Amino acid sequence: MIKRVKKIFEKIFRKDFKQIIREKMGEFKQAIVIRTDLGMGKGKMVAQGSHASLHAFQRAVDKSREIAYAWEEEGCRKIVLRAGSEKELMDVYEKARERKLPATYVRDAGETQLSPGTLTAVGIGPWRAKEIDEITRNLKLL
Amino acid sequence: MIKRVKKIFEKIFRKDFKQIIREKMGEFKQAIVIRTDLGMGKGKMVAQGSHASLHAFQRAVDKSREIAYAWEEEGCRKIVLRAGSEKELMDVYEKARERKLPATYVRDAGETQLSPGTLTAVGIGPWRAKEIDEITRNLKLL
Repeated sequence: MIKRVKKIFEKIFRKDFKQIIREKMGEFKQAIVIRTDLGMGKGKMVAQGSHASLHAFQRAVDKSREIAYAWEEEGCRKIVLRAGSEKELMDVYEKARERKLPATYVRDAGETQLSPGTLTAVGIGPWRAKEIDEITRNLKLL
Repeated sequence: MIKRVKKIFEKIFRKDFKQIIREKMGEFKQAIVIRTDLGMGKGKMVAQGSHASLHAFQRAVDKSREIAYAWEEEGCRKIVLRAGSEKELMDVYEKARERKLPATYVRDAGETQLSPGTLTAVGIGPWRAKEIDEITRNLKLL
């Protein structure tokens, strides 16, 4: 069904579908922000980052199916960033919320390594890359 | 709507909804397997693991909305494992496919660090924890 819709679009616009989306909507990305001050192991980071990614994706679908779909079409671009403290983590979350970007934070269940309720990660988007960049430009890559 | 359905179930069974699901369907988990022989940095691992997680989740939704939903109700339990080679990574993927578990593998786009097309991660489930454990029991935690 989706393939047929794509083909129709491609016929109308005489362009590749990805190209149509990119020109129409700009580029999209998802930001995953992970705390680095908790001494989390790699596996823990992957688990927390995946939580953030999935939940933020679901928020994005609720907000704009078109953007979420376009992001998948583009290959699910993700950027993984570091926050040095709970404050730094939640500051970026608050900024995202203020600007009405789809965002989510992760609290650890505390079954291993961390105490229950520890804030570990934030997911933002998929959303317009430009808007994501504006609120994350101070954070370094993990 | 979902809340109303939950309440109806809870009235009928005189139990908490999570409890009903657990008793009815067992426990669920998602496995994320990451290659450790590629020298990927932490951020790269988080990105690849999140790809695997999201795509495997979408496969699971296609296969059984009930299981995907129950897994979310249970708090999205994830286990992150390591594979020491491409062979080890793809062996677990093949096992999952043979048993008809929802599974996906990730190929890196090759924009940074790795050469294009490198197999980096596998996601399996969410699915019944028992069945996930059976095919991943030889892999160590990341």
